[in-house]
Amino acid sequence: MTAHFADRLFARVAATDSRLCVGLDPDLARFPLELLQRFSLGPESWSDPANAKRIGDCLAAFCLEVLDATHDLACAVKFQIAHFEAYGHHGLRALTAACLAAKARGLPVIMDAKRNDIGSTARRYARAYLGPDTGPDRAAFACDALTVTPFLGEDGIKPFVDACAASGKGLFILVKTSNPSGAQVQDLPIARPHGAGAGETVAERLAALVDAWGEDKKMIGKSGYSAVGAVIGATQPESLPKLRALMPRAVILMPGFGAQGAGAGGVRAAFDDQGMGAIVNSSRSIIYPCDPDEADYFGKVREKATGARGELNAILR
Amino acid sequence: MTAHFADRLFARVAATDSRLCVGLDPDLARFPLELLQRFSLGPESWSDPANAKRIGDCLAAFCLEVLDATHDLACAVKFQIAHFEAYGHHGLRALTAACLAAKARGLPVIMDAKRNDIGSTARRYARAYLGPDTGPDRAAFACDALTVTPFLGEDGIKPFVDACAASGKGLFILVKTSNPSGAQVQDLPIARPHGAGAGETVAERLAALVDAWGEDKKMIGKSGYSAVGAVIGATQPESLPKLRALMPRAVILMPGFGAQGAGAGGVRAAFDDQGMGAIVNSSRSIIYPCDPDEADYFGKVREKATGARGELNAILR
Repeated sequence: MTAHFADRLFARVAATDSRLCVGLDPDLARFPLELLQRFSLGPESWSDPANAKRIGDCLAAFCLEVLDATHDLACAVKFQIAHFEAYGHHGLRALTAACLAAKARGLPVIMDAKRNDIGSTARRYARAYLGPDTGPDRAAFACDALTVTPFLGEDGIKPFVDACAASGKGLFILVKTSNPSGAQVQDLPIARPHGAGAGETVAERLAALVDAWGEDKKMIGKSGYSAVGAVIGATQPESLPKLRALMPRAVILMPGFGAQGAGAGGVRAAFDDQGMGAIVNSSRSIIYPCDPDEADYFGKVREKATGARGELNAILR
Repeated sequence: MTAHFADRLFARVAATDSRLCVGLDPDLARFPLELLQRFSLGPESWSDPANAKRIGDCLAAFCLEVLDATHDLACAVKFQIAHFEAYGHHGLRALTAACLAAKARGLPVIMDAKRNDIGSTARRYARAYLGPDTGPDRAAFACDALTVTPFLGEDGIKPFVDACAASGKGLFILVKTSNPSGAQVQDLPIARPHGAGAGETVAERLAALVDAWGEDKKMIGKSGYSAVGAVIGATQPESLPKLRALMPRAVILMPGFGAQGAGAGGVRAAFDDQGMGAIVNSSRSIIYPCDPDEADYFGKVREKATGARGELNAILR
């Protein structure tokens, strides 16, 4: 078993002086032309599953270029699995390779898969993403943490929690997402008993559950943070202080910084006095820094990552 | 574009006189020994990703045997994708093959993946599972319908709805799941404005949204049912009548029949007077009919499917 997820993550934050998680949402339509040409891919061919093997190789190559350009500027990498699933098993072969490449560069790997199901099925997802790194029971995808959706309640969460306890990995449970219509479910006010009006929201109830699911001492690392973390969109500054207060031990993953419009100021309340306790993800605004035909594409990726890291550190000073 | 999903599904129900959806949740630990031996797999080897290619081949072979044993007794097949993801890209290669084999036998394919994400990512999932069957934009996995989780609200659902409108495929949105702790989120009572006490539950609110998301006339088939359907666990007979009334056009997929303890009586209210409008899934109680070392394993699978089909038809008489 490796060390506790939160301890490994915050050691990396300290070593790189970075709270930036680089998000890999690879989209061939935005890849640099030079890379597409290397794999003989163009607009007429990149959507055709008949080219899936070459597309898979190209996805893996893009990820490696981004990892090489940003690994020393990032505390973690987050792979958005839909962008690999879109190309079927060849896409997932690329993802397998990209996860191993990130690990080889010392980067903790967060798999953004938002999985959820009943207990017996959740155990299979846990095996795929949260099993140990080595040995006969090792995970199919070499990850350090997984995002999950709490819509099925505790028995859809416990198998993931148990897997983390066994493997030293982590969980980010969706509490308040970055998209506008998340409010249709997450902001619903729960009625108090006996007609006493509205109490907490669904998101607040979930934050309390996240705290309870992660409170066992075997889930808490030396840093004081739990392996059971939460997702709160960086676009939700008004919800953040209350949700953070409800789950003080949770590592908070904040997506939506950059392309989704969130600024650095909206994430401040997630961090503790040492600038730990949270990480902020930016995907499209880093990995697509310019037009596909511009020179030095991955040099510009590095510039964007440098800028985002500095912007986040500035608000913690 | 193929015909409307609900029309194709109910044509199959009529042709097979079956409301039974056979669920494929392949678990090597329960496979017949004869099949494992054919791929040189045993307890010491089946959990090791080093054997992933042979495991993938064995998963595909198991699915084919079940499809051959049950296809004329079933209105659809539901693949639980976690059981394939557990074996990484080789598992998903097996799933690709199994989907095509189901289609070749005339079975509508439901992918039980419970995907959910923000709009730009939901579009990638839609591409993977709900694209057309042929042509350069074809889906990586040949499905007819996909299960999705509504935790992110409308902008996480619309890309799936749009994909269905274009491809003649269908959607099953989780409204009330079969597991006990689903109540922690789905049964929460929503407060009425102005302190007027508790109104609808989260599941009831979602049922109303499912109805609204599927009401456009381009989403409605000749049968009168919408391509936007819903999941209600067969274990939820007390919730079913009200939820059905809130979404009269939705095709209802009911999992949990059999191994999860639900009986046929609990599903009656989902069906219309012609015995259409819903299908009932059974997985483990059909595909694991006996001990792994018993003879004629897949003959017994067929017996279980025959029994479940008859049991469902009996309650509709």
